[in-house]
Amino acid sequence: MEAVNLQTKLQMFNEHWAPRTVSEFNGHDIMVVKVKGTFGWHTHEDTDDLFMVLEGRVRIETRNGVVSLEPGELYVVPRGVEHRPVADEEAHVLLIERRGTPNTGDYTTAAPRRIV
Amino acid sequence: MEAVNLQTKLQMFNEHWAPRTVSEFNGHDIMVVKVKGTFGWHTHEDTDDLFMVLEGRVRIETRNGVVSLEPGELYVVPRGVEHRPVADEEAHVLLIERRGTPNTGDYTTAAPRRIV
Repeated sequence: MEAVNLQTKLQMFNEHWAPRTVSEFNGHDIMVVKVKGTFGWHTHEDTDDLFMVLEGRVRIETRNGVVSLEPGELYVVPRGVEHRPVADEEAHVLLIERRGTPNTGDYTTAAPRRIV
Repeated sequence: MEAVNLQTKLQMFNEHWAPRTVSEFNGHDIMVVKVKGTFGWHTHEDTDDLFMVLEGRVRIETRNGVVSLEPGELYVVPRGVEHRPVADEEAHVLLIERRGTPNTGDYTTAAPRRIV
């Protein structure tokens, strides 16, 4: 039995937009990710997408509006809703998605699952 | 579209061991809970149990060991594992469980689902 310390996990990598799985929960990956800049528009047809900001600021843009997140704030993008995360400066995010969900929403371009 | 600010939600109640649902995700309740003291031993047969400490310190005791959590740390109790959370001083926790899961693990004694 060991606590998962999110700061420790975040110190293990530097790439942006490359989530690392730190634990698992009911068939979901619990991930940390460093983000900076604008990610591409994408849709997850079969999973909601949970973003919780740990450090910095992130905007989640959809075709119908935008939500701005600071540390201690979360937002769930419902399945099927096209969205893109945007961070003007580097930000750190806790991300939970159904296991195996590609972060682009597109299985053909998805990066492999990485575990730290 | 609105961010869920966990501090704001926590300021809306004072009871201990009475989780409040703040959002939903793939059939799960995302909850905040204030804890203090020792909760009863219980088991969730059909869901893992995600604890992430937001403030204070919490110990998750099982029959085989204990994990101590500080802010920014999380632990997933696997389904079927008997456990009890303990907090010597008040602590604030983000909790994710399958929707409708009683926090005692026993449907007959569970408190109703509360939403803030």
